[in-house]
Amino acid sequence: MPAMRKPSLLLLLVPILLIAQTPTPSAARREQAREQFEEGIKHLLVSQVEAWNHGNLEGFMQGYWQSPELTFFSGVSITHGWEPTLARYKQRYQSEGKEMGRLEFQDLNIDLLSGRAAVVTGKWQLTMKDGKQPHGLFTLIMKRLPDGWKIVHDHTSGE
Amino acid sequence: MPAMRKPSLLLLLVPILLIAQTPTPSAARREQAREQFEEGIKHLLVSQVEAWNHGNLEGFMQGYWQSPELTFFSGVSITHGWEPTLARYKQRYQSEGKEMGRLEFQDLNIDLLSGRAAVVTGKWQLTMKDGKQPHGLFTLIMKRLPDGWKIVHDHTSGE
Repeated sequence: MPAMRKPSLLLLLVPILLIAQTPTPSAARREQAREQFEEGIKHLLVSQVEAWNHGNLEGFMQGYWQSPELTFFSGVSITHGWEPTLARYKQRYQSEGKEMGRLEFQDLNIDLLSGRAAVVTGKWQLTMKDGKQPHGLFTLIMKRLPDGWKIVHDHTSGE
Repeated sequence: MPAMRKPSLLLLLVPILLIAQTPTPSAARREQAREQFEEGIKHLLVSQVEAWNHGNLEGFMQGYWQSPELTFFSGVSITHGWEPTLARYKQRYQSEGKEMGRLEFQDLNIDLLSGRAAVVTGKWQLTMKDGKQPHGLFTLIMKRLPDGWKIVHDHTSGE
């Protein structure tokens, strides 16, 4: 009965094709973890921008590793530690005659180097009251610590 | 025979103490791999400095990922790709009236993020014929590729 052969072959092929298209559980888990990590990192950056634009430097600093080992590179100067980094931001953006401006990040790129470390690059831009727009680039090294993703090293440069 | 007990106890303890002090094979292998990776990274940086100080920009560029995906951040400018990065170096250091100067790296710090990725930070300094010493900071993202460790992202800043 040759007429019967085609459907039975197709029925045999369908589950094989379905299996071939389904990612293995471990690949699916990895993809899920990757998405979850990228979401965690994006959430941190969005929270930082929101805190900055509310004039909340302590909130902005929550994205950084609260450790004396945090490193912050800007131009030719190195700042070590969470407290000195906050002090530097306060001096530059909240001292007499200074303003924080409105912060934006652009062209974000997240490269997940492992399940515990990532590098994030992008552009930063401030819009000041007088319309000036200081801007530059950043490279962030982020690690997944017990309290979530944190920036452990920030290299920023501008004009 | 109480007099016999002490030595036999000691003899029993010696191998236990020896075992406790010996790293497990996997820990020893990890440590060995870590040392090997750090040596590979240091070798790359030393080779770069040597090439630079011989006026060999192509040699210097061997440390970079030979890919259009290489990213080079300097100040506010982004260069994409190995060829454009070489062209940028040539323009800045080998064109009419320019000199390469003598390159030195200082305060190198290697953070091995995994067996496949590392972040290297440090200071760079050039010494020019007139004694001027332009200097700054760098953050390198390095990956272990089939042909060894390569810089896949360079963020450099100066005065």
